Amino acid sequence: MSVTRQSLHDLNTPCLLLDRAVLRRNLRRMAEQIAGLGGVLRPHVKTHKSLDVQAELEQAGAVSGITVSTLAEAEYFFAAGQRDILYAVGIAPNKLDQIADLMARGADIKIILDSVEMAVCVAARGAELGVTFTTLIELDVDGHRAGIDPRSDALLELAQACQVPGLALGGVMTHAGGSYNCASVEAIREMADQERSLAVLGAGRLREAGHPIDIVSIGSTPTAFFATSLEGVTEVRAGVYTFQDLVMAGLGVCGHDEIAISVLSSVIGHQRAKGWTLTDAGWMAMSRDRGTEGQAVDFGYGEVWDLQGQPLGGLILRGANQEHGVISRGAHASGEAPELAVGDKVRIAPNHACATAAQFDHYMVIEDGYLIDQWPRGRGW
Amino acid sequence: MSVTRQSLHDLNTPCLLLDRAVLRRNLRRMAEQIAGLGGVLRPHVKTHKSLDVQAELEQAGAVSGITVSTLAEAEYFFAAGQRDILYAVGIAPNKLDQIADLMARGADIKIILDSVEMAVCVAARGAELGVTFTTLIELDVDGHRAGIDPRSDALLELAQACQVPGLALGGVMTHAGGSYNCASVEAIREMADQERSLAVLGAGRLREAGHPIDIVSIGSTPTAFFATSLEGVTEVRAGVYTFQDLVMAGLGVCGHDEIAISVLSSVIGHQRAKGWTLTDAGWMAMSRDRGTEGQAVDFGYGEVWDLQGQPLGGLILRGANQEHGVISRGAHASGEAPELAVGDKVRIAPNHACATAAQFDHYMVIEDGYLIDQWPRGRGW
Repeated sequence: MSVTRQSLHDLNTPCLLLDRAVLRRNLRRMAEQIAGLGGVLRPHVKTHKSLDVQAELEQAGAVSGITVSTLAEAEYFFAAGQRDILYAVGIAPNKLDQIADLMARGADIKIILDSVEMAVCVAARGAELGVTFTTLIELDVDGHRAGIDPRSDALLELAQACQVPGLALGGVMTHAGGSYNCASVEAIREMADQERSLAVLGAGRLREAGHPIDIVSIGSTPTAFFATSLEGVTEVRAGVYTFQDLVMAGLGVCGHDEIAISVLSSVIGHQRAKGWTLTDAGWMAMSRDRGTEGQAVDFGYGEVWDLQGQPLGGLILRGANQEHGVISRGAHASGEAPELAVGDKVRIAPNHACATAAQFDHYMVIEDGYLIDQWPRGRGW
Repeated sequence: MSVTRQSLHDLNTPCLLLDRAVLRRNLRRMAEQIAGLGGVLRPHVKTHKSLDVQAELEQAGAVSGITVSTLAEAEYFFAAGQRDILYAVGIAPNKLDQIADLMARGADIKIILDSVEMAVCVAARGAELGVTFTTLIELDVDGHRAGIDPRSDALLELAQACQVPGLALGGVMTHAGGSYNCASVEAIREMADQERSLAVLGAGRLREAGHPIDIVSIGSTPTAFFATSLEGVTEVRAGVYTFQDLVMAGLGVCGHDEIAISVLSSVIGHQRAKGWTLTDAGWMAMSRDRGTEGQAVDFGYGEVWDLQGQPLGGLILRGANQEHGVISRGAHASGEAPELAVGDKVRIAPNHACATAAQFDHYMVIEDGYLIDQWPRGRGW
């Protein structure tokens, strides 16, 4: 929707700000990185869940299709014309009927699985419904979550189990979520290489066994940025790079000035003896994510910025209740502590963009410190 | 809305279950506790944000008015006929116009503050708008968050600062959130006594100074349950007791069989070598709340139950990504680990009811293991 241009001083709090210029810079940076390697992006919409952000993404280029983490996302983007959808969470049998229905309505939706057990379930339901589910095999390249070892015999057994009515093997996918725990940019670069080479290895073994493998899908924001080759890869999935966040900054993936979202909040009081400033952004606004807890700088529930988006004297949101936040100086702070008066507004940068954005139903889109638009976002399952 | 009676096996996952029989038992227990002490409840709707739960609450008795943590809650319940509303977060100046508007539409809304600075802001806006904001002074009884020391000179100065056009001093309120960190039921009992006695002390000092104090509002779920006297108190606020959760169970406030909400989830795979079972309930469903982390038993992101609501072999949701959960045995587990097959459904009890419920837009209301109703809930600011 279009809105009257407003100063941030006039907005109710808490609300979720999205700086469009920063967003566009982030999208361009990733598009250039992936296009530069001759690749194409299948952006993960779970971070933004916004048709408007998706339009910006497509404008930035090097994009084909979307990745979703819920069928609600699939429905939301399908209703807006998106057809090429990868549902990148191991399939649960109770979701197959809705997927078949999306297919009947024209969606080209791909699912993923990593076990013979699940292949049997999917094929059985596909046969019952008279549809063929296009399936990618999830490969485990870093031991962090789901997937099957691309070097294992089990991979070939699983591919064989997919050669049944109701199922069509479309390729392989992997998510190098382990990159979130890398200690250095060099380690992320190595992880990117490991992710790519193991995905390509798995695809090669399947092809040797006679399975046509069209899709080799890899990705995570850190490995996408630090990949030096996409040889053998057909698409890269990433989501959080659209907004970036403090966790990504802590990993060396971005600077703090590349974080596109923040929560606008009002000062509601003080406990001066303790050095606390209280605000109306608690965990309901920021989420309970504490992703920087294990990083070199722990930002609590977020980094406090002024209205121009500049970090404010080492202040962090050290504590959060449902609708209360407690601001104090972070362990990394130096120099004078700035004084905030009741009624003053601050912006709070999130640990984890996906989690914080999910707490809100729309983005207050800003440019040069003014509200210029309001963009809705989807939610639920 | 009314729904067809369905087995839990037929529901899509993840979804939020609310066991109505457990809810009713919880509401009755608190109503009896407070009524038994001659008190009355002003329930905090921030936990449930549901008109249907509120109707159950009123049915259980001993209830007068509501407490809200956002103006969105105030609007939601006001639209359904609720008039007597306490907005129990220190006021931010940018919320005063909406509060004045609610008052003009017939709401009896009370705000809170704890500083002369804020009293000056509120009075100025009240005078400009030609309205009188009824204000409670927030007292700090446990050092955990906001509020002014009830024994301080500053309390009397603040009350004096409220004697201006645009402001009317209606009483005092306190929230003993420190009770969430009590190490024993005995410590909660002491905290309840401390909360009550300091609130009454503050009210008494204000009355002696000539201020009529009608409202003495205290509360938190732990202190409400373990209070042995409400002498001098006019109302008790509590919210989480409606649903209870693992944090409350860890404090000794309730049993696990008193937890009324849980997230229904499907098994989507395994990493057997690691003892992991993967599910489709991640932090988007459970929230990022890790409230049991510092308690005697750490349940990760939740305790895994079978469909009947019985804890399942010491299984917990040890890890969570956005739409993936990792189930494994908790440190407290003993005996054989139950085997879960892909497609099996489990229920996951939350660390923190307020945070988990907020991830969903409606409750799937169950009784005797069957879906009997679907109740919407409010959200946002």
